[in-house]
Amino acid sequence: MKRVEALKQLAFTKEKFDAFLVLNETNQLYFAGVPGTSCLLIPKKGENTLFVFALNYENAKAEAKNFNVEKVERGQNIMAKVAAYFKTMKPKKIAFDTAPYEVYRMLAKEFRRKAKLSMQNGLVQQLRRVKDASELELMRKAGEITVVGMKAACEAIKPGTTEIHVAGELEYAMRKKTGWGLAFESIVASGIRSAYPHGGCTEKKISKGDLVVVDIGAVYHDYRSDMTRTFIAGKPTEKQTKLFSAVKNAQKKACDAIKEGELGKDIDLVARKTIEKAGYGEYFNHGLGHGVGLEVHEGPTLAPSSKDRLVKGNVVTVEPGVYLSGFGGVRIEDTVLVGKEKCEKFTDGFYSPETMS
Amino acid sequence: MKRVEALKQLAFTKEKFDAFLVLNETNQLYFAGVPGTSCLLIPKKGENTLFVFALNYENAKAEAKNFNVEKVERGQNIMAKVAAYFKTMKPKKIAFDTAPYEVYRMLAKEFRRKAKLSMQNGLVQQLRRVKDASELELMRKAGEITVVGMKAACEAIKPGTTEIHVAGELEYAMRKKTGWGLAFESIVASGIRSAYPHGGCTEKKISKGDLVVVDIGAVYHDYRSDMTRTFIAGKPTEKQTKLFSAVKNAQKKACDAIKEGELGKDIDLVARKTIEKAGYGEYFNHGLGHGVGLEVHEGPTLAPSSKDRLVKGNVVTVEPGVYLSGFGGVRIEDTVLVGKEKCEKFTDGFYSPETMS
Repeated sequence: MKRVEALKQLAFTKEKFDAFLVLNETNQLYFAGVPGTSCLLIPKKGENTLFVFALNYENAKAEAKNFNVEKVERGQNIMAKVAAYFKTMKPKKIAFDTAPYEVYRMLAKEFRRKAKLSMQNGLVQQLRRVKDASELELMRKAGEITVVGMKAACEAIKPGTTEIHVAGELEYAMRKKTGWGLAFESIVASGIRSAYPHGGCTEKKISKGDLVVVDIGAVYHDYRSDMTRTFIAGKPTEKQTKLFSAVKNAQKKACDAIKEGELGKDIDLVARKTIEKAGYGEYFNHGLGHGVGLEVHEGPTLAPSSKDRLVKGNVVTVEPGVYLSGFGGVRIEDTVLVGKEKCEKFTDGFYSPETMS
Repeated sequence: MKRVEALKQLAFTKEKFDAFLVLNETNQLYFAGVPGTSCLLIPKKGENTLFVFALNYENAKAEAKNFNVEKVERGQNIMAKVAAYFKTMKPKKIAFDTAPYEVYRMLAKEFRRKAKLSMQNGLVQQLRRVKDASELELMRKAGEITVVGMKAACEAIKPGTTEIHVAGELEYAMRKKTGWGLAFESIVASGIRSAYPHGGCTEKKISKGDLVVVDIGAVYHDYRSDMTRTFIAGKPTEKQTKLFSAVKNAQKKACDAIKEGELGKDIDLVARKTIEKAGYGEYFNHGLGHGVGLEVHEGPTLAPSSKDRLVKGNVVTVEPGVYLSGFGGVRIEDTVLVGKEKCEKFTDGFYSPETMS
């Protein structure tokens, strides 16, 4: 309930809205702690109400202790049900977080001429990006599980093995370590495919000497982790070593620079300058990192265009990468917690590129 | 390119739009065949153009042979870039598929007073729901892989084992069979948790006699499958047997009723009536099924409120379920292809509830 109170403070005291509609399922999970809900209504005065379809009603009713839980029957228009709730309350200014355009239209139809609607996802994201102690405990564990997966990947990579085989081994290892699932689709991208930042994994066999980018994450109790290592199936060539060192060096410098008060764009610049000096500037074609939590991509952002300033409790990825088309790519990534003076790594180890050949 | 031509036929000949903007990434994948793109512009006259951020540009450039591929630099406003493309074309009526409200606002800002915007996701969904031969080949394979996963789940379920352990075994088996990943988060829900249709999987240990709902799907080359079986960790009780038989019977009858020309709501009714007759009507609290393809939930829908009529080439799930709060649930689901006279099952087998105890 502390999270709901914090949102009420932002939305009703600072911003003068009369009600907040949480339409995004992950945001609902953040506030109410149960999955499978469809709308969370937080009025300025009155009961916080979860609207849940019959399918997930029993689960929500049992687990969401501090909320009024309303069942929505199959085929019922949920927005009409929410609007009915507002009949006595008569709010003039309603904030909502975010929605697909289809849902927004339904919402607008119900509230036309009755209230002003305002998209205020920023208020929710502002809260979500500062993790509390209970969230950090789960994220540390998600990090530990991910490291176990990376160890399994490192051991599985050898010439003749497929990318999918490596993914299977690392995912199995994460389940053995009580992973709740995958934070995102595992990436095992080898050879020239390693130059594609979002390469998935395929039946391709790993060849001797291939660069292999492994980008993975475990989920633990809904919280996510994100970690990348680049391995080499054999002995690195001089060019591979140079590339690897540049990225590793940039990643370390950026991690060392992270602390409360720093700007996201400045941390990005630390990594970017290091890679530029090594002569690969134009091949680092994405931002340095992003927040992680209930989602694998959230705020704050570490990138040239970022306006975010880091505060204690942010959890971000630090993931410089250099991609040489037709040759291969190297990316190294950890998930780290921003502290007062430095960062704490939730993922760590396996920085050496060589695996058994 | 046949898919783009089919959309042009619908949007420009039948509906008289001047251009179609495909904003949804899965829809882009359907038309262009490459992942990681950000917008696909299909003009009435002129080149079909993919807008791709620098990150994924090399991959798209290499794989999307029949499209003009435009690089979007980091920080560039993609909608402004699309609008610039329209300067010479001057379309008056622009259709788009679907978008988050944030993206719609950016779009509306660029085209205000220049063109009329119309959300037409239905046109794309109309195409996507009828699978062609190449799609069906991949979906058959996704089904085969899923069945291998179900066999592994059946073998892994025994008293004292955790839900996560079972998930690990079945996912590992699907990877061994060259699965590209998971169609959705695996569900292994045991005991009273089996009564929650979207139960995920947890550290909970399976107890002797527990109902265990296993709802899983493999991905193969971006195409998905969806299959559910309910096992019993031991010998079924009379109540469990009655429940199981009602659902199994409903699922079989609904599958037998599927063929081209039938209404989605009528197939739902076949299952619903069977379950009502067995006395569980009020506990079947979701629709009977949904389309599957590049996404695990797409059209057409089998449900009381569905207006869809089945045609040859639709691929749908058939998944009746009965959930008794505090006792447990049973759901049985297959992914099937609608044919002229009957359906073809892409998933099959493991209909017996008993596993080793």
